Amino acid sequence: MTGRRPAGPMRAIHAMALVLSAALAAGAAQAADAKVHTFRLDNGLKVIVKQDHRAPVVVSQIWYKVGASYENDGHTGISHVLEHMMFKGTKRHPAGEFSRIIARNGGRENAFTGRDYTAYFQQLAKDRLPIALKLEADRMRHLTLPPKAFKKELQVVLEERRMRTDDQPRALTYEQFYATAFMANPYHHPIIGWKNDIEHLTDADVRRWYHDWYAPNNATLVVVGDVDPKWVYGLAKRYFGPLEPSKLTAPKPRSEPAQNGPRKITVSLPAELPYLLIGYKVPVLKSAEHDWEPYALEVLSGILDGGDSARFARDLVRGRQVAASAGTDYDLYALHNDLFVIDATPAQGHTLAQVRTAVDREIERLKSRPVSQKELDRIKAQVVASQVYQRDSMFYQAMQIGILETVGLGWQRLDEYVQRIRAITPAQVQAVARKYLVDKGMTVAELKPLPLQGKRPRGPRARPGGTVDGHMH
Amino acid sequence: MTGRRPAGPMRAIHAMALVLSAALAAGAAQAADAKVHTFRLDNGLKVIVKQDHRAPVVVSQIWYKVGASYENDGHTGISHVLEHMMFKGTKRHPAGEFSRIIARNGGRENAFTGRDYTAYFQQLAKDRLPIALKLEADRMRHLTLPPKAFKKELQVVLEERRMRTDDQPRALTYEQFYATAFMANPYHHPIIGWKNDIEHLTDADVRRWYHDWYAPNNATLVVVGDVDPKWVYGLAKRYFGPLEPSKLTAPKPRSEPAQNGPRKITVSLPAELPYLLIGYKVPVLKSAEHDWEPYALEVLSGILDGGDSARFARDLVRGRQVAASAGTDYDLYALHNDLFVIDATPAQGHTLAQVRTAVDREIERLKSRPVSQKELDRIKAQVVASQVYQRDSMFYQAMQIGILETVGLGWQRLDEYVQRIRAITPAQVQAVARKYLVDKGMTVAELKPLPLQGKRPRGPRARPGGTVDGHMH
Repeated sequence: MTGRRPAGPMRAIHAMALVLSAALAAGAAQAADAKVHTFRLDNGLKVIVKQDHRAPVVVSQIWYKVGASYENDGHTGISHVLEHMMFKGTKRHPAGEFSRIIARNGGRENAFTGRDYTAYFQQLAKDRLPIALKLEADRMRHLTLPPKAFKKELQVVLEERRMRTDDQPRALTYEQFYATAFMANPYHHPIIGWKNDIEHLTDADVRRWYHDWYAPNNATLVVVGDVDPKWVYGLAKRYFGPLEPSKLTAPKPRSEPAQNGPRKITVSLPAELPYLLIGYKVPVLKSAEHDWEPYALEVLSGILDGGDSARFARDLVRGRQVAASAGTDYDLYALHNDLFVIDATPAQGHTLAQVRTAVDREIERLKSRPVSQKELDRIKAQVVASQVYQRDSMFYQAMQIGILETVGLGWQRLDEYVQRIRAITPAQVQAVARKYLVDKGMTVAELKPLPLQGKRPRGPRARPGGTVDGHMH
Repeated sequence: MTGRRPAGPMRAIHAMALVLSAALAAGAAQAADAKVHTFRLDNGLKVIVKQDHRAPVVVSQIWYKVGASYENDGHTGISHVLEHMMFKGTKRHPAGEFSRIIARNGGRENAFTGRDYTAYFQQLAKDRLPIALKLEADRMRHLTLPPKAFKKELQVVLEERRMRTDDQPRALTYEQFYATAFMANPYHHPIIGWKNDIEHLTDADVRRWYHDWYAPNNATLVVVGDVDPKWVYGLAKRYFGPLEPSKLTAPKPRSEPAQNGPRKITVSLPAELPYLLIGYKVPVLKSAEHDWEPYALEVLSGILDGGDSARFARDLVRGRQVAASAGTDYDLYALHNDLFVIDATPAQGHTLAQVRTAVDREIERLKSRPVSQKELDRIKAQVVASQVYQRDSMFYQAMQIGILETVGLGWQRLDEYVQRIRAITPAQVQAVARKYLVDKGMTVAELKPLPLQGKRPRGPRARPGGTVDGHMH
C-alpha cells in the first residue's frame, strides 16, 4: 500500500467513516436497526453479518485479537510491523497482488493496527465479496514473510515512526505522557513501538507473532452490506473453513499499580506552539465496577468537547480566548483501564499555566455544580446524534462491531449505547468528575517549545492521539 | 532459608561485606593484590579463583547472567521467584537439604537477585569446598520445581513484597521514581516485580526461565580463599563438567528514548516523614563514550556523600540543618544506563521544597566552581580507602569479580579502579556535573506524608534502594 494515513482509534476512525460515508451512504438511517447475524465456524472463526441495503456494496473486515497492548517490552511495535508484512505476499499471491486484485475489481482496501486489535478491510461491489474473503483467508495462515522484504519494510516503518512521532513534538509528548501515566498497564507502550525495539525486530520475531495470533479462532469476520447472511456464511465456510486453529495463550494480565499522586513531565523540543495534556485514570466498560460510569464519562466528555457549543469551545476558545484549541479524548471500549485525556493549545499571548488554570476551573465547575438538565439534554442529543450519524456508514458499523467483539464486550453493546447515554443524570456526571478527575490519578505533560532554528517541523496536528494511537497501513 | 535480608547492590553488599569481614578477615591487605586465575570448562562455565591465605576458609559464589533487567513486562519478578525456588530441591537433594548440608558442615549460604545477576554463595572451611560445588552443580540443571512448593513460595514472595515495598512508602516512591525515569530501559521494572505480575506467575513460567538461563555457559563460578586454583579447577570440572550447556538467546536491547525535560511525581501515602528523590540519567562503564566519566561521577558522589566531612553531611545535615539525612547512589558497574540518585529527608521543621533548594544549590556549586585539589584529594583517599577496605573481605572480593564478569566488564576492571579514581581532575568532576546533572534528564519524586491514622508503618529505612534493588534469599 502506498497511502498510509494515521488513525486515532475512535476519533480518526470517525473522521474516516465520515469521509467514506459521503461516498457510500445512499439511504436513510434504518440500517442502524438491521438485524445482526452471527455464526461460528468449527475452527473458531466468528462471522458477523449486518445487512444494509442502501447501496449494492459490501464492507468486509477481518479483526485479529492482537495489537500493541498484547506486546512485551523489547518487542513493541511488532503487531504494526506484522500488519505491514501482511501485504508482502503468500505462496499463492506474491507481494502486491492482494492490493492489485482488489483495485482491479474496483475495491478499496487497507489495514490498521490499534492498541487492542489489528484489522484489515475491503470495500467492494457486493458480488465481489468472494474475492476479498478468498484473499484474506489465504493470508491468515500462509504468509511467506520473506527476510529481504522484511528488512526493507522495517525501514518503511522506521520512516513512518520518524515522520509521525520523532519529528512531531506533540506526538513525542503524547507518547511520553502515556508512558508516565501507566507503568505496568500495556498502554505504557506506543502502538508504533519504541524506536529501538523496531530496529531490533527480526523476521523470526514477526513470524512467531504471526503464528501465535493469526488464526481463525483468534479472529472475527465482519461483513456489512447489501448481502444475504447465509451467503456470507457459506463463503466464509468455504474459504476460511479449511484453516487450522492455533493453540492460543492468553497474555499475562498487566494491571497498573495504584497511583498515589500527580505526575508531571515537561518536554522541551523545537516546536511552534506549546501544548498541554492532562490525563486522569478512569475505568472503561471492560473494567468498570459500575457500568454506568463509562457512559457518564462519555457524557462528561461531550459537555467539555461536544462541538461548538460545548464548554471548551464556548468558554476557553471563543469566550476567554485563552486556548487556541481544547479537547477531550476517552475510549469507553478500551480493553484495559485507560486515561480520560484533555489536551489544549494556548492562544497567542497566553501561557501553558493560564490554559492549565482555565481547564482546572472547568473541572472544578463540573465537580461543584451539577450540569443543568437543559445543557445535559443538548449534549446527550449531540452525543447520540453523532453516534447515529456514524452508523450511517457501513464502514463505521462494521468497525464498531469489530471493536466490540475483539475486546470481548460483544456487538450488542452497540445497541445499548443510545439508551445508556440517555439514562445518565446530572448527579452521575458530577459523581464521575469528583471520583476520577482528581490529582491522585492525574498525569500532566507540557510541551515547551524551544526555538526552531531553521528546522521547521511538519505542520502540527490538532491531536497527536491520532498519530500514535492507530496506524493505517 | 529463613532469614531474608534486603540488599542494595553495592551499598548493602558493602555493609554485609563489612559484617562478614569482621569474622573472616584475619590478615592484612596484601590479598587484594593476589593473582586471579581463570579457567573455562568445555561446556562454557567460567571459573575464577583468587587466592587469599589469611584464613583457612573459602567463599564460593555462582553467578548467573540473568536478573530483573532480563525480564519482560507481565513476567517481572521471575528471576527473584526462581532464586527462591532454587532452595526447593532437586531429585537428588529434596527441599531444604542443600541448606542443611551446608549448615552441618559449619558453613553459611544464601543467595540474592539483582538487576543484572542472580548469585548463590557459600562460605566454608576450605576443605569443604567440594560439598558446595557438588550441590551447586546439582541444582544448576536438576531443579524439580514442584508445583505445590511453587504455589506456597509465591505467597512467601508476595509477603516479602508487601513487607518491603507495599508497606514502605519510601520503597513505593522509589519504585515509581525509577518507573518514571525509565520508559523502555529495563530498569523501569522493580527487581521484586510488580505485584500483579508475581501473582500471575506459574511454575511453567519459572521452569522455562530456569531452563533458558541456568546453564554452565551462562554462569561464572567465583572462588576466593585459602585454596589452590588447580584444585578448584579440578573440582569444577568434576562437578560442573558433565552439565549440558544451553542455547542462549540474548535479550532484546531496550535502550531508553531521549528525555527532553524534567519529570516529577508526587506520592501521597500515610508516612511519618517526607522524602525526596532526585535522579539524573548518567552513563555507566558499560555504555560510557568517555570511560573516565563514570569514575568522575563516582568521585562526585564521594564529594557529596563520602562520609561525615562530605558536603551533604557537612552543609545540609550539620551545617544548615535543613536535612535529617541526604545521600547519593551511583552504580558504575550497572549493565544498562542508570540514574545518579540523590535522596534526602527534611529535618524537622523543614519542607521538601527547602531541602530541594539546598540540594540544587550544592549541584550548582559543583557546576560553577571546580572542587579544590585539597578537597578532591581527601575524597579520593576516602573513595580509594573504602574500596581497598572492602577488598579485605573474601566475600566482597568474590562479589566484585562476580559482578564485573557477569555484566561483561571483566574482573580486570577491579584492579584499575584505584588508579582511575586517582586520575580524576577537578575539571572532570565539574564537566560531568555540567553535562549530566541537568533538568533535561532529571526525575524527581516527592513522598508527601498523609496522616498515619493509627496505621504505623514499619520503621522507615534510610535508603529504599536497599529494599528494592536486591533480595537476599
